[in-house]
Amino acid sequence: MSTSQILSKAELLNHWQGHRRLTRRVIEAFPADKLFTFSVGGMRPFADLAKEMLSIAVPGLEGIVNRAEGAYEESQPDITTKEALLHRWDEATPRIDALFDQISEADFHETFNLFGQFNFPIIENILYFIDNEIHHRAQGYVYLRALEIQPPFFWER
Amino acid sequence: MSTSQILSKAELLNHWQGHRRLTRRVIEAFPADKLFTFSVGGMRPFADLAKEMLSIAVPGLEGIVNRAEGAYEESQPDITTKEALLHRWDEATPRIDALFDQISEADFHETFNLFGQFNFPIIENILYFIDNEIHHRAQGYVYLRALEIQPPFFWER
Repeated sequence: MSTSQILSKAELLNHWQGHRRLTRRVIEAFPADKLFTFSVGGMRPFADLAKEMLSIAVPGLEGIVNRAEGAYEESQPDITTKEALLHRWDEATPRIDALFDQISEADFHETFNLFGQFNFPIIENILYFIDNEIHHRAQGYVYLRALEIQPPFFWER
Repeated sequence: MSTSQILSKAELLNHWQGHRRLTRRVIEAFPADKLFTFSVGGMRPFADLAKEMLSIAVPGLEGIVNRAEGAYEESQPDITTKEALLHRWDEATPRIDALFDQISEADFHETFNLFGQFNFPIIENILYFIDNEIHHRAQGYVYLRALEIQPPFFWER
């Protein structure tokens, strides 16, 4: 068996942070009021989806690094403006880098019960963080289209 | 430097096929007519998004395996029914397995000009296939919600 890595730890982090830069552009594209009020089909407004991403990223990584299985909670209820959301987004960026750095390559195949609820290998937990962000961000794309606003290009990271 | 792989080739394929199983459930959730006609905000109906996924997956992998840089083209214009779309989806599944198997681990960091247009390491091309599927499938989730249909659970693969 070859020991070539198909994806390095640094590449996975860079992939995620690239997605986070795109999500930041989607937040920016919303009019300040629509960000907290507009949705389609009874779904949550985009600010709530972005707050969910924030409630997963740093808390999830802290759980992994400290092997602490505290329950998931919406940890950003006090964000009520676009400016505050973007500020919190930017604060999370270097914390994600620093926490991710503390996960050793060997750790990625250890099983961890994320938020006391999702008992999977750590690589799957982290892929889930990224997939969940892509999924909810794409819902923001539909909201923007419904508002007749051009979303950022998907391939722009 | 450790040689532990954070993500094996088999895991990446399994991750993608898990997403494809979920996308299949989203196709199934649409009423047959709405699949080809309904959308939000002037976007494409979900059948067109699924046809895009089909036009990327096998043709993209064939390009990678054969190092053939043919242009992207919508390769499924003849799919006009839900049944035909699901059938084509299922046909692609083992072809993806077989083609993916022909990419060696060392290949993932070779640069390839996908569709003569996207000149990136092969790992990035393949992550893009998956990300693009998650992105467009999530738009289908919004369409289903707007149709008052409960979409499948995101974490069900």
